[in-house]
Amino acid sequence: MSRLTGPEELPGWEELRKLVDAAVAAAVCAENFPPRLWQSMLYTAGSGGKRLRGSLVLASCAVAGGDWRRALPAAVAVELIHAYSLIHDDLPLMDDDDFRRGRPTNHKVFGPAVALLAGDALQAYAFEVLVDQANGAPPELQLAWVRELSAAAGPGGLVGGQLVDWEVEEGRWQQLAEGELAAAGMLEYVHRHKTAALIRAAVRMGGLAAGLREEDDVLVRLGVYGAELGLAFQITDDLLDEVGDPEATGKEVGRDRRRGKLTYVALYGVPVAQAAARRAVWRAQEALTPLGERGLPLVQLAEQVLARTR
Amino acid sequence: MSRLTGPEELPGWEELRKLVDAAVAAAVCAENFPPRLWQSMLYTAGSGGKRLRGSLVLASCAVAGGDWRRALPAAVAVELIHAYSLIHDDLPLMDDDDFRRGRPTNHKVFGPAVALLAGDALQAYAFEVLVDQANGAPPELQLAWVRELSAAAGPGGLVGGQLVDWEVEEGRWQQLAEGELAAAGMLEYVHRHKTAALIRAAVRMGGLAAGLREEDDVLVRLGVYGAELGLAFQITDDLLDEVGDPEATGKEVGRDRRRGKLTYVALYGVPVAQAAARRAVWRAQEALTPLGERGLPLVQLAEQVLARTR
Repeated sequence: MSRLTGPEELPGWEELRKLVDAAVAAAVCAENFPPRLWQSMLYTAGSGGKRLRGSLVLASCAVAGGDWRRALPAAVAVELIHAYSLIHDDLPLMDDDDFRRGRPTNHKVFGPAVALLAGDALQAYAFEVLVDQANGAPPELQLAWVRELSAAAGPGGLVGGQLVDWEVEEGRWQQLAEGELAAAGMLEYVHRHKTAALIRAAVRMGGLAAGLREEDDVLVRLGVYGAELGLAFQITDDLLDEVGDPEATGKEVGRDRRRGKLTYVALYGVPVAQAAARRAVWRAQEALTPLGERGLPLVQLAEQVLARTR
Repeated sequence: MSRLTGPEELPGWEELRKLVDAAVAAAVCAENFPPRLWQSMLYTAGSGGKRLRGSLVLASCAVAGGDWRRALPAAVAVELIHAYSLIHDDLPLMDDDDFRRGRPTNHKVFGPAVALLAGDALQAYAFEVLVDQANGAPPELQLAWVRELSAAAGPGGLVGGQLVDWEVEEGRWQQLAEGELAAAGMLEYVHRHKTAALIRAAVRMGGLAAGLREEDDVLVRLGVYGAELGLAFQITDDLLDEVGDPEATGKEVGRDRRRGKLTYVALYGVPVAQAAARRAVWRAQEALTPLGERGLPLVQLAEQVLARTR
């Protein structure tokens, strides 16, 4: 670690969002990619959104005592993985969504074949960005980032969660002989993998950028924070589908329910889902207690995630 | 580097194929993946084929003076990337193929959604395999492997080639105002990226496993060999589509031509395509001249690639 800076140097969330936006756009517009490919990649990866994952990488680095600028390649890579998963998720052969963030989905603009390839390209490129010799990160940090991100993105992480989510869709989970217990287990599996694995990786990659090592207590705590925040985020997403303001969320109300998707709301109802999100946020915040004031940006972010459904 | 072994220790190609088969199967059957996901991953990644790319990694390591066993993780990773690209290529929204290697394609067995996710999972897992702390490779080698494979697989490599291939399909290239010159440029681009980039990476990853560094002359030569061999391989594939024995190739004769695909045969005819393959093999072999007898396994392999169309 070259230099320690306190969290007081960390820009605000809106500023972080803009920083991530700019870094992602700069990374994707490479001159040696076929134009239509990077246009399609940029359409989704560059289209903003909340940048929760990328901002978490930077904030977590600062909270762990590092210079957040050092974590920028990891922030970009995590956002590229997120963007690829959105493109593939929206494809006609998956969720068949026509709109995302109030705009036509990638395949509606570029066609499903180009959208598929743009997703594939974004995933490979995420790893390329992490190991780019020009990004200034020491080799051992680049390697630790690849370990973290490949595990979170792969069959034991994000894709595994999506697979189970797909398998239990269309109401099939309701016919399970074992009933609610099995459904609850699957629901937890899906949320912990599909959404929380990448958010956990984002937080840990920020910690790694600050120079933390596998054996460090703070890295373990950041991992717990990320996993619980990710769970809370997915539950509040389920809640927004049911109780959210479609103007604010850009989502059609009750769409998941009509599709028979297995969600916290579908399985437990709104009040229990709200309590589950609250508990997950508590667990996230509790994990950071020993950090005291230093952990404040992440503690407050968890509160904001919860506030989405109020 | 712990130990130097000569190419005399390198097993024969059939033996290498079996070694790669076993290593890929062992890697994919992980207990922490959803069963249906690894079944789908294994269906394509474990289903054999020639294992040209994986065997090349091992052979190239031996030719460069290394112990080929050390290159096994790289051989597995390259085959996982190849398998993912086949699954996505066959999807209804791309080539819409029902059969591959004489068996129903992945999406015919598992459905398009699971096939899509299995491809996504294979790509992420390829990088996970490369950086696995249990694989025994030194950290700097793992990092060099990730650099090589992510660049070859991504938008500046394999996916870029597939994108251009897709864009010029269905006879659209025939209507180009600039005519043959533009088509020839695109054809070269597609072949060099879609097929040759990964084969080049395979050969270079073997060289890296032998301890070669970026600045080493032999690594550069292995790269040239791989790129030219990859080009020859794709041209002979185009030729097999036109003149091959469907029994031996498992391919329907003339399928690419009927689809209006841009191939060496479509653009130049059979004799010129045969000469182009011959020239690419010469260039591949010539690059290895300074290695003398040590390079023999790779020189002979290039001859075998050419012999496929005789």
